[in-house]
Amino acid sequence: MSDQQGLFVKMALDAWNNEIKFTNALLDKLTDEQFMHEVAPTRNRGIYLLGHLTAVHDRLLPLLRFQDVMYPDLSKPFLDEADKAVADLPSVVQLREQWKAVNTTLTDHMGRLPAADWFTRHASISEEDFAKEPHRNRLNVVLSRTSHLANHRGQLVLLTLR
Amino acid sequence: MSDQQGLFVKMALDAWNNEIKFTNALLDKLTDEQFMHEVAPTRNRGIYLLGHLTAVHDRLLPLLRFQDVMYPDLSKPFLDEADKAVADLPSVVQLREQWKAVNTTLTDHMGRLPAADWFTRHASISEEDFAKEPHRNRLNVVLSRTSHLANHRGQLVLLTLR
Repeated sequence: MSDQQGLFVKMALDAWNNEIKFTNALLDKLTDEQFMHEVAPTRNRGIYLLGHLTAVHDRLLPLLRFQDVMYPDLSKPFLDEADKAVADLPSVVQLREQWKAVNTTLTDHMGRLPAADWFTRHASISEEDFAKEPHRNRLNVVLSRTSHLANHRGQLVLLTLR
Repeated sequence: MSDQQGLFVKMALDAWNNEIKFTNALLDKLTDEQFMHEVAPTRNRGIYLLGHLTAVHDRLLPLLRFQDVMYPDLSKPFLDEADKAVADLPSVVQLREQWKAVNTTLTDHMGRLPAADWFTRHASISEEDFAKEPHRNRLNVVLSRTSHLANHRGQLVLLTLR
């Protein structure tokens, strides 16, 4: 590992950890009942966004080559289907626990990965393609998912007044 | 410059440019009238978010040590004040033009900055502090503003159905 790699890993993980911290502070402020509201008329409900984010972060575990997903049952209702298409969703209480468990597990793996390993390929790109496109590495996945989380956090904050 | 620095810069600027591209595609879909709506009941209107994002990106020009701000008049209504606190906002047509001009100017500067220079200090940190905290560099500002843009894009998209 080089000092430069360590610096850039810190920058990317700081951005990720900040976004997680802001999101957790927001989720703690929301009541279970507020999660049942739509973020705006006709749009996704808070419960769907919470499940969606949990499912997306859960899939980061294999994508970053850390381990298997923890909650495969979240994929169908929160990735394959739109909000309100599935009648029996998990409870908000359960989703809050799964959200925390997934992110704690992720953060543990992230903190242990040596800086140089962040610049190796993620699980969805072949060795061949990665040789040609070395920016498609594990750390780049974190940059992309940080924006994804920021995007949906901007929507979840709209629940706070209702 | 090292190859590694070039790779980091590409990763961070790709994330920025993607977010700008997605936002521009969204703004092109919205009518001027849709910008006058609130993203959710009682929340910011589209016109405010467009002005806010333009003002924040305009301030990146001096923060990244590229040049002076282009539209200093945007600060008061879109940074200092909340939505609906200022009666006479610029028109949506004008804000769309300023949004494009600011981002084109930013992108030009960004594309010309040598990779090593991205890892020098931004304008709001002293040489002294930067020596202790080298992660607070110009590229880190881009990571942070990419999340900021993603956050508000998640809100602007709620205008599309209304």
